[in-house]
Amino acid sequence: MRTVVSSATKEWIIGVDEPFTIIGERINPTGRKILAEEMKNGDFSRVERDALAQVAAGASMLDVNAGIPLADEPAILADSIKRVQALVDVPLAIDSSIVAALEAGLEVYQGRALVNSVTGEEERLEQVLPLIKKYDCAVVAISNDETGISEDPDERFKVAKKIVEHAQDYGIKPHDVVVDPLFMPLGAMASAGTSVMALVRRLRDELHVNTTCGASNCSFGLPNRHALNATFLAMAIANGLTSAIMNPLHDEEIAGIMAANIVMNHDTNCTNWIRKYREPSAEPDQGRRTGRRARR
Amino acid sequence: MRTVVSSATKEWIIGVDEPFTIIGERINPTGRKILAEEMKNGDFSRVERDALAQVAAGASMLDVNAGIPLADEPAILADSIKRVQALVDVPLAIDSSIVAALEAGLEVYQGRALVNSVTGEEERLEQVLPLIKKYDCAVVAISNDETGISEDPDERFKVAKKIVEHAQDYGIKPHDVVVDPLFMPLGAMASAGTSVMALVRRLRDELHVNTTCGASNCSFGLPNRHALNATFLAMAIANGLTSAIMNPLHDEEIAGIMAANIVMNHDTNCTNWIRKYREPSAEPDQGRRTGRRARR
Repeated sequence: MRTVVSSATKEWIIGVDEPFTIIGERINPTGRKILAEEMKNGDFSRVERDALAQVAAGASMLDVNAGIPLADEPAILADSIKRVQALVDVPLAIDSSIVAALEAGLEVYQGRALVNSVTGEEERLEQVLPLIKKYDCAVVAISNDETGISEDPDERFKVAKKIVEHAQDYGIKPHDVVVDPLFMPLGAMASAGTSVMALVRRLRDELHVNTTCGASNCSFGLPNRHALNATFLAMAIANGLTSAIMNPLHDEEIAGIMAANIVMNHDTNCTNWIRKYREPSAEPDQGRRTGRRARR
Repeated sequence: MRTVVSSATKEWIIGVDEPFTIIGERINPTGRKILAEEMKNGDFSRVERDALAQVAAGASMLDVNAGIPLADEPAILADSIKRVQALVDVPLAIDSSIVAALEAGLEVYQGRALVNSVTGEEERLEQVLPLIKKYDCAVVAISNDETGISEDPDERFKVAKKIVEHAQDYGIKPHDVVVDPLFMPLGAMASAGTSVMALVRRLRDELHVNTTCGASNCSFGLPNRHALNATFLAMAIANGLTSAIMNPLHDEEIAGIMAANIVMNHDTNCTNWIRKYREPSAEPDQGRRTGRRARR
């Protein structure tokens, strides 16, 4: 149950025995007017800043989306990927609802990408799965189909199972399918939390796949969203969630995930936690720098 | 699987279908020199302030401990309980390692208390369980015995099972035994998180008991303790933990627990969350108070 992705120089593993995979979501013009305009005009400076900032904040992968209405999405997506890969070495998720754009992205991508995404819709399956096979990469499988998103977690499990089976027909292994069980907003659906936790656990134990989610969706419409996102992520991780497509620039979510890594025994000797959060006075060369130790 | 506790006027249920039970730990002279001195001299003003502050911060119950070396612990514990019960209406946990103090506390307690605690040690079982039966109350069962605290979660499960069985011999129901599976420090034992989560789940599913823990122990020796405590609590709640003995005066832990209540579907319509965290501008009378709305 290891999904191996890579850039030209760096491998990353999504898996239950690995630190949680943070997929940075910022490179996406949806709802970002200025970014959309810039990308359309071939200005990738903001894309590059977003890439650097997210990696610095702890992103293990970056999602790249170029969905701009009335623009040449395949070309812009391919250009974005080239720019990002020239700058950072984390593996990328190639994100589009347009199959030609996914293919344009895969064509220029260096390494083993995660394609975002396929659904349980027959037409989409038949268009996307051959690409996954051809480029030997991994794919995000969203558990909805022609009938939409079911509120029943058993139905969403069935859709995920169908996608995994279709993928196998194309010679794609279950460990290369990363299922998004679809987190519903907690404020809109009282059982959203318990049902998705049970679903994530089932996907791990019965379907043996890795999982991902859009992490900020859960707190939609509620105050203090970052604290709620952080807690929900940790609780989903406790049930087996292995990655999230999220904004890594928020400290609360990052702290929650880093703490969850300790709890899951994926931060040996708490090294990453201590490096990030130790008190300045605990730094070994602090005394020398300030001269305090010498004066005593 | 409902542990019913009460004060003279208020009932509280510890259970998997209930909001998480926060047991305030502050009324405890261990490591608090000034408080110990005051309690010994019959000054309960700090005890009273601690009681009010903890209830205001969200404590569902309060733990009361009067363990002061060379002092008359039974008398001080009884007095503390009377003072606290005169002031706040949450149920109490009567906390002592001295059986005579537990009995003195139970003698004056109004309502149905939680006794903290019994262990798997034969002598302790034979002293404490008859008290639980006599006063018809609930008890915290700590999963260690004569051999100490086992690092093996299966051994700790066995000790818990033994205590529950002994309690049944005395006519005490399993739902009146709240098991503390003993959280080890995450920094000292790499598998502490995963093993205690599995143990909490087993105690819920196989032994059908409620659970509690000393919440701050998990982050011992590590920086940014509150974030780690909050995350670990939420992850344990996701596995079935139903209460914690903890300091409710820290916002991060309270936010983590309140968010976990939403995820577990124990905060209907997110009412408590919204009441606590909504933006000031969303308060209905904000415009009137500041006069801003009138001026427009």
